[in-house]
Amino acid sequence: MAACAQAPQTASPAAPAERWLGTGDLGLVVERADGRLQVVNTSSRRVLGRIEGLGDLSHASIVYARNGLHAYVFGRDGALSKVNLGERRIEARVQQAGNSIGGAISQDGRLVVAQNYQPGGIKVFDAETLQPLADIPAEYLPGKFSRVVGLADLPGQRFIYALFDADEIWVADLADPRVPKLQKFRNIGRQPYDALVTPDGRHYIAGLFGEDGLAKIDLWAAAPRVERILGGYGRGQEPLPVFKMPHLRGWAVAGRHAYLPAIGRHEVLVVDTETWREVGRIPVQGQPVFVMARPDGRQVWVNFAVPDYDRVQVIDTQTRQIVQTLSPGKAVLHMEFTPRGEAVWISSRDANRVSVIDTASFQTLATLDSASPSGIFFTSRAGKVGL
Amino acid sequence: MAACAQAPQTASPAAPAERWLGTGDLGLVVERADGRLQVVNTSSRRVLGRIEGLGDLSHASIVYARNGLHAYVFGRDGALSKVNLGERRIEARVQQAGNSIGGAISQDGRLVVAQNYQPGGIKVFDAETLQPLADIPAEYLPGKFSRVVGLADLPGQRFIYALFDADEIWVADLADPRVPKLQKFRNIGRQPYDALVTPDGRHYIAGLFGEDGLAKIDLWAAAPRVERILGGYGRGQEPLPVFKMPHLRGWAVAGRHAYLPAIGRHEVLVVDTETWREVGRIPVQGQPVFVMARPDGRQVWVNFAVPDYDRVQVIDTQTRQIVQTLSPGKAVLHMEFTPRGEAVWISSRDANRVSVIDTASFQTLATLDSASPSGIFFTSRAGKVGL
Repeated sequence: MAACAQAPQTASPAAPAERWLGTGDLGLVVERADGRLQVVNTSSRRVLGRIEGLGDLSHASIVYARNGLHAYVFGRDGALSKVNLGERRIEARVQQAGNSIGGAISQDGRLVVAQNYQPGGIKVFDAETLQPLADIPAEYLPGKFSRVVGLADLPGQRFIYALFDADEIWVADLADPRVPKLQKFRNIGRQPYDALVTPDGRHYIAGLFGEDGLAKIDLWAAAPRVERILGGYGRGQEPLPVFKMPHLRGWAVAGRHAYLPAIGRHEVLVVDTETWREVGRIPVQGQPVFVMARPDGRQVWVNFAVPDYDRVQVIDTQTRQIVQTLSPGKAVLHMEFTPRGEAVWISSRDANRVSVIDTASFQTLATLDSASPSGIFFTSRAGKVGL
Repeated sequence: MAACAQAPQTASPAAPAERWLGTGDLGLVVERADGRLQVVNTSSRRVLGRIEGLGDLSHASIVYARNGLHAYVFGRDGALSKVNLGERRIEARVQQAGNSIGGAISQDGRLVVAQNYQPGGIKVFDAETLQPLADIPAEYLPGKFSRVVGLADLPGQRFIYALFDADEIWVADLADPRVPKLQKFRNIGRQPYDALVTPDGRHYIAGLFGEDGLAKIDLWAAAPRVERILGGYGRGQEPLPVFKMPHLRGWAVAGRHAYLPAIGRHEVLVVDTETWREVGRIPVQGQPVFVMARPDGRQVWVNFAVPDYDRVQVIDTQTRQIVQTLSPGKAVLHMEFTPRGEAVWISSRDANRVSVIDTASFQTLATLDSASPSGIFFTSRAGKVGL
């Protein structure tokens, strides 16, 4: 074996003036109480530094630019911030609403969109500068504005979202962002409270707070329309105590099946994505909040609402059995898989800890100190639709 | 050997400045005739620079480190090079074999493995330094060594590959890379010439040069074994002129169906991945070579062997109809989708051109000058299994 044919290419004694670092294995952890983000590296499993001054980060969410170096942070207080993970600073920031609940980035990375409760609607920004490009109020009746939820990007500079107060789903085509074109689906069901797009971008599914069942749109259909699926899904007539409505965005689609958090019940539902019918239920140790598939779909990881929120359970999708129960620390709020799924990062808010767990052996590979951590977002999200 | 990775560190008193490169939207284009790589940016659609001195790059393939900054280039001449996309230089290089045909990187990014024709076998290297860790000859009978093809990474520091001359498939467990554990599947069919792992990492499928049909292993089974599928797939008894055996690695799995290049026929086959039976055939304008799904699975793009290799056709997977025929330039060798699929990059070797095509409008968004371009590899591959 010949040794490095071309190691030192020149006789120059000088080291390279610049040492470059890559962003493929980076991520952000939200330290919600302090308005701060931790920049983490999933190869070294370490905190590289912090970005401060982001305001109210309760329920904050993050999307990434195509380059993986920039991220957009949607704060609950209506602020939208563009941060640089390398320089660990805020590059741009706008106070764009009074009460905001997340956002999305266009397929080509040029448009960032925030969904707002107050004023109800979406706002569109240039991803480079955060310059406002369009303001689309969710005015469903003259002078009536709805809170917006379930915003997701679709192919072709389009965005889809639900109007909680209007029982509607809108698609905004922003091919020309200054002249948005809207398509409206009405009477989709009472009070859509969250929604998701399947990983292939084909189906949009909204959960309903005001009735049972879910609203589904096949976006690949020649003439998309709303269908009702899973009539039994919801809070039901029985007065079950529901400690937290689950996050739909966490739904797992693994192979042909989707795994859904039951509402108020200690169960994960298994749904066939060809028929959209329930084909099984898996008992778990609490009310599920996030139900997330490992990237290969062979495992589904579940966390829970109070009082069971110190636990995480792992379902094997082949046998539909629980194969592991973990206690990574009190108040597990979020989980994020590394891109190829060998590890999962879990935030335990009240333990002030992020745990890195090996998904094969279930061993804890590392723990990181973190002040009240909530959401964890890795740069690999940049390459995904609907996240 | 550790030396060549870290050029001269002592000469300069000043530590090099750290600079972060957003690596999420970068890629490499192989300029095969010149032993050179172009570093490209898929946001600006430009060539950022070149990396020279890579030797024989015919049939070269590339895998990425987790950080997206480093790539590993497997040359046909048996050289393995670690390149830095930011500094645009070779960081380490080993002449590891006489004739090599690609490689893979472990799920955790720590091991790089090359598959070799001469000497037949695989070799394992430390991804950081390219230090050799293991040499696993494909010795199937005393003194008999097989050429190795179809190497792919599996979860858990494992690699799977086929032995062309031995009709075997081996799985190497490199949890301890200095003490590899081998599992061998024998009599899998005559002359496996290429193979793939499905995107979920579950099925390994090897094409057979010496007979019809394919060998499949369900790697999630409690006791994995070889099954024969698609008995009619292959060159058949009829003496069809086969201008080029198709690349299996290009197989598209879109939703529940796989789209396969027929061998020697002007057809793409549609296979149900639950039954592994053929359910349809789509006529195309030449002998297909690469059959690749857009990331959302709604389109499948096909290129062809001589004499039809100036063309590319697009299949709509909903209708199974050809929806577009493009002529991006003579000798189309490869296609690579951007991570979220809004564009595809196509190399036309004899036109000395890479074309960037909008996958919705089919318009050409940009063309880049490139000297005899062949493979195109984007950093988003770092997050995928089996690529």
